Amino acid sequence: MAARRRSETLLVTTIRAGERSRHPDELIVEEPMTVQLDGITVSTTMRTPGNDYELAVGFCHTEGLLAGCAVVGVRYCANGSAVGSEFNVVTVETGGRAPAPRPRLGNTTSSCGLCGNDAIDELCDRLLVLPATAPITMDVLHAIPEAARAAQGLFDTTGSVHAAAAFTPQGDVLLVREDVGRHNAVDKVIGRLLLDGSLPATGLGLFVSGRASFELVQKAWSAGFGTLVAVSAPTALAVHTARRAGLVLAGFVRTDRLNIYSPERLAP
Amino acid sequence: MAARRRSETLLVTTIRAGERSRHPDELIVEEPMTVQLDGITVSTTMRTPGNDYELAVGFCHTEGLLAGCAVVGVRYCANGSAVGSEFNVVTVETGGRAPAPRPRLGNTTSSCGLCGNDAIDELCDRLLVLPATAPITMDVLHAIPEAARAAQGLFDTTGSVHAAAAFTPQGDVLLVREDVGRHNAVDKVIGRLLLDGSLPATGLGLFVSGRASFELVQKAWSAGFGTLVAVSAPTALAVHTARRAGLVLAGFVRTDRLNIYSPERLAP
Repeated sequence: MAARRRSETLLVTTIRAGERSRHPDELIVEEPMTVQLDGITVSTTMRTPGNDYELAVGFCHTEGLLAGCAVVGVRYCANGSAVGSEFNVVTVETGGRAPAPRPRLGNTTSSCGLCGNDAIDELCDRLLVLPATAPITMDVLHAIPEAARAAQGLFDTTGSVHAAAAFTPQGDVLLVREDVGRHNAVDKVIGRLLLDGSLPATGLGLFVSGRASFELVQKAWSAGFGTLVAVSAPTALAVHTARRAGLVLAGFVRTDRLNIYSPERLAP
Repeated sequence: MAARRRSETLLVTTIRAGERSRHPDELIVEEPMTVQLDGITVSTTMRTPGNDYELAVGFCHTEGLLAGCAVVGVRYCANGSAVGSEFNVVTVETGGRAPAPRPRLGNTTSSCGLCGNDAIDELCDRLLVLPATAPITMDVLHAIPEAARAAQGLFDTTGSVHAAAAFTPQGDVLLVREDVGRHNAVDKVIGRLLLDGSLPATGLGLFVSGRASFELVQKAWSAGFGTLVAVSAPTALAVHTARRAGLVLAGFVRTDRLNIYSPERLAP
């Protein structure tokens, strides 16, 4: 299979202090990808091509669709026909063992709406509180953004793309994935770990280059990470969810400062 | 109806140059909201509460669900029961005149996947190329981020929330909306304009505080904005879409520099 383009060169007009110039610029590629589970469509996301199998497997895992069933195959294009965009559908196979996909959160009309508490309760119904592990030290947390940054090659090219990374308690970055969407970058990291038989990620930390939303805490929890490090702020719901999960959540992480939003598990 | 909380105070542990302190911090609120069109669920999005009617109406418009039909009513909670989260479902009413909602992009199993070109073609099928209007001057484009910034009260409080704004060719900011999601902030702006009878927004510009993805260009085009100004980078697909739409797309916009990605309509 040919490597997919992840950035594209376009001619851009730059205006700087009133002076106009024209030059080629590298822009991040964004294309829709459909994820199917045992042939049934479960999602379409705008993503940056590359690591598509990881994205599909990671998505199915973090959304709880696999329900613990093993992935027995991943492939492009469910029906086998070969047209131009055949690389934009990925089917995850469990041999039919995964339960038929439920409608996603909110695709229901029976209730009168979900609030944040309902959203957390739904997670607590399917996920156990994370086991206590030795907390990652502050020195490691401070250093993670720069350590991950060194492996963000697509950011170097385009100046604008999200990244996620898995790291050890010693601060070693195990893998980095980049994508136009934060949630996709996280799903790619988690999908890689699943395909390698490395889930749950007990004791490991997850780094994200932007903010920490509810969805990212949900994904980190689903994969068993004990720590989530974000470069920017979490939402209130992300904090409440992290506290319920027993996840250490750090935000606004820089070399000389950071915030901890769920400090219950920190070393005193 | 009581005002909804848009930020929440939580106790946070801050570590700065090795010193640990504990203090209250304002975090952005994130809750799921379900949008229904004539009683049929069309979407659930994580959003910051507030301007929910605008969000629901704007979403239905920018996704093409209204198909030109007038909105005759907007209300909370389709079935009228009053439980805790009744403010998290909004029904947009057209009196049944809007076509039955199609499955959204990607909720199809009949094709073998969409590529970026397909996504643009789908838009071109339903949207006309934007009419040529006098381009907004560079001086106005340079000034928009700071002009909009002055009205981002929730950003002042939380340090992390997206904003969208509509502005005139003279650089006057007409309205600003803030949300945990960029797409929601844009839908709120567009929904306000629709409810005010001010669409299409011909001649106006749309500002977004982050990157410009395909989805944001789609929304700007749907509302008839002639210009889209982003603080960060566009994706390649966003640029291709803007060029097809006849939309002026500016990125990395600062007071002293900016990039134009679709310069065909600029003054020479």
